[in-house]
Amino acid sequence: MNSSNATEPSISELMQQHMDNLTKPVGSLGNLEQYALKLSEIQQRVPPSVGRKAVFVFAGDHGITEEKVSLYPREVTCQMVLNFIGGGAAINVLARHCGFDVSVVDAGVDADLRHAKIIDKKVARGTRNFLNEPAMSEEQLSTCLENGRALAEKAVREKYDLVALGDMGIGNTSSAAALLIASGFKPEDVVDRGTGISTEALDHKRQTIMQAVRRHTPFGSPRTILQRLGGFELCAIAGFILALRERGVACIIDGFPVSTAAYMAFSIDNSITSFIFAGHRSKVRGHARILEAMGMEPILDLGMRLGEGTGAVLGGQVVDLSAKLAGEMASFDSARVSRSEEIEENY
Amino acid sequence: MNSSNATEPSISELMQQHMDNLTKPVGSLGNLEQYALKLSEIQQRVPPSVGRKAVFVFAGDHGITEEKVSLYPREVTCQMVLNFIGGGAAINVLARHCGFDVSVVDAGVDADLRHAKIIDKKVARGTRNFLNEPAMSEEQLSTCLENGRALAEKAVREKYDLVALGDMGIGNTSSAAALLIASGFKPEDVVDRGTGISTEALDHKRQTIMQAVRRHTPFGSPRTILQRLGGFELCAIAGFILALRERGVACIIDGFPVSTAAYMAFSIDNSITSFIFAGHRSKVRGHARILEAMGMEPILDLGMRLGEGTGAVLGGQVVDLSAKLAGEMASFDSARVSRSEEIEENY
Repeated sequence: MNSSNATEPSISELMQQHMDNLTKPVGSLGNLEQYALKLSEIQQRVPPSVGRKAVFVFAGDHGITEEKVSLYPREVTCQMVLNFIGGGAAINVLARHCGFDVSVVDAGVDADLRHAKIIDKKVARGTRNFLNEPAMSEEQLSTCLENGRALAEKAVREKYDLVALGDMGIGNTSSAAALLIASGFKPEDVVDRGTGISTEALDHKRQTIMQAVRRHTPFGSPRTILQRLGGFELCAIAGFILALRERGVACIIDGFPVSTAAYMAFSIDNSITSFIFAGHRSKVRGHARILEAMGMEPILDLGMRLGEGTGAVLGGQVVDLSAKLAGEMASFDSARVSRSEEIEENY
Repeated sequence: MNSSNATEPSISELMQQHMDNLTKPVGSLGNLEQYALKLSEIQQRVPPSVGRKAVFVFAGDHGITEEKVSLYPREVTCQMVLNFIGGGAAINVLARHCGFDVSVVDAGVDADLRHAKIIDKKVARGTRNFLNEPAMSEEQLSTCLENGRALAEKAVREKYDLVALGDMGIGNTSSAAALLIASGFKPEDVVDRGTGISTEALDHKRQTIMQAVRRHTPFGSPRTILQRLGGFELCAIAGFILALRERGVACIIDGFPVSTAAYMAFSIDNSITSFIFAGHRSKVRGHARILEAMGMEPILDLGMRLGEGTGAVLGGQVVDLSAKLAGEMASFDSARVSRSEEIEENY
């Protein structure tokens, strides 16, 4: 029995007290107070603070594109990676103005991408076509997870407080949908017009994914699902998330592909949601379902469906601001502002 | 007949073309594309651009506080104005990190507030108690509207592209609710526990407001409603908004009090929504109804209920980022990215 432990307030209690002393009615910052509280728990610090922020964009190609599940040619993955390097993509603009460093990871793009600005974690030039065979070998899956882990360690070493995760990969909504269906989601809930395709093309996409999932059933474990139906970038993201447990770094997930990778990590370890924020709810069918399944509420709902980490950076910016509020606002005493006569919720 | 006019594309069409040429699937930035498009129409420029941003926080006191409709003492209005000047309020923290200049306007605070950092537009030291008499004289209303106009002109002269509006005034949710009820809103929809008060106190607040509205009925015009039930800060905000028509400046409204002021301006001139963005949907009862009545969708929904312009600045930041995306993203041609084979909505 340790009586001092029993009476010592927890970080959450201390943080709640801290926030209730700031010059605002109790609870009036709404969700921002919840974000600051969660950040405080992640960092075990009152108030939390956010210094460096990064977005890691993982890119990879997918063998399933042979089945014409996307209208974009496969080369777009590589072209967009070069766009990220050139600073011209949406994620670059948002990261620049929201203060996030951009790290671009080649997790398995089908192109020779050696470039000082690209983190080379290429496992192979695209996965295999999972309609016919496993997307990757068990060894390749281990390499992906290990690559993710190494990058998470790097983020910790480089003292990032907030890491947003993004994806780029033509065909990766098909891989993500397959991963989810194999994990028990209903096909009609998670197969979307990922490429803005016609009804016939959507039917074709759905049938292709269903056929692939049936081919590889039964799976036995989330790892097996990832190996047979995953993408290199999605597996690396899952590895990244799993490695970030208990490292004090908050992680912001993006839309459908990144959230699917997070869901696979969640299947392996339910505790990951303790340090994850859902940056936004994307317009891609199924994204809302994934978040619900993890018990997460999205920060933003702006009808976006771009990927690249764009929703994660926008949501991450809100989390950052919640920390700034908690850290920089005056208290009732310091600003000599009168309190209300009772516990209140507004002026 | 002017055939060149008939064939020349409009700003909206040019802006849509511009956005569809950026390296992203058509429409994939969701609401951000709508915000950029609206900004382009406001500025009559493709792409739009946002340089300087400001938040104007209007403060005033309310005679109705004599009826104990708020738990906060009246002095808090003045104390919070000093907190704004000292940089310790929530609005200061958000404005600082989102790049908004803060202008604090004394529209009628019950204190001697002369200070270099406060814009002195004091009409009187608080309105009269509208339970017993009109809140202000017709002349005072004209002065408020004129003060708002003068500040809008100032914002235009100082070349602000985006102006967020905030409020501070103990008792102003009672004034706002009265304005709305007099304008036809249902009392149960717009009288909230503005001060986090008990059920009995809420009943008292509702009865006080209803009694006051009945006392002053019929009104005849939005102007009369403002004069009898308004607050100096709310009237100045309405004047500010009305004066900003066709000046090329986008305006971001905040929560319940500011949106009520905007609604009164809207009652006078429905066209004001063309240059207004609703920064957020606040948790204060009735706010959602006001936005619906103006046909506006809020940008954010973060459960906030603080005022001061906090929701307006957060939403304004998203509008700003939409302009940055439209202005700084690479085009398919410049980045040498392949287009899809059809009109698409996602990679």
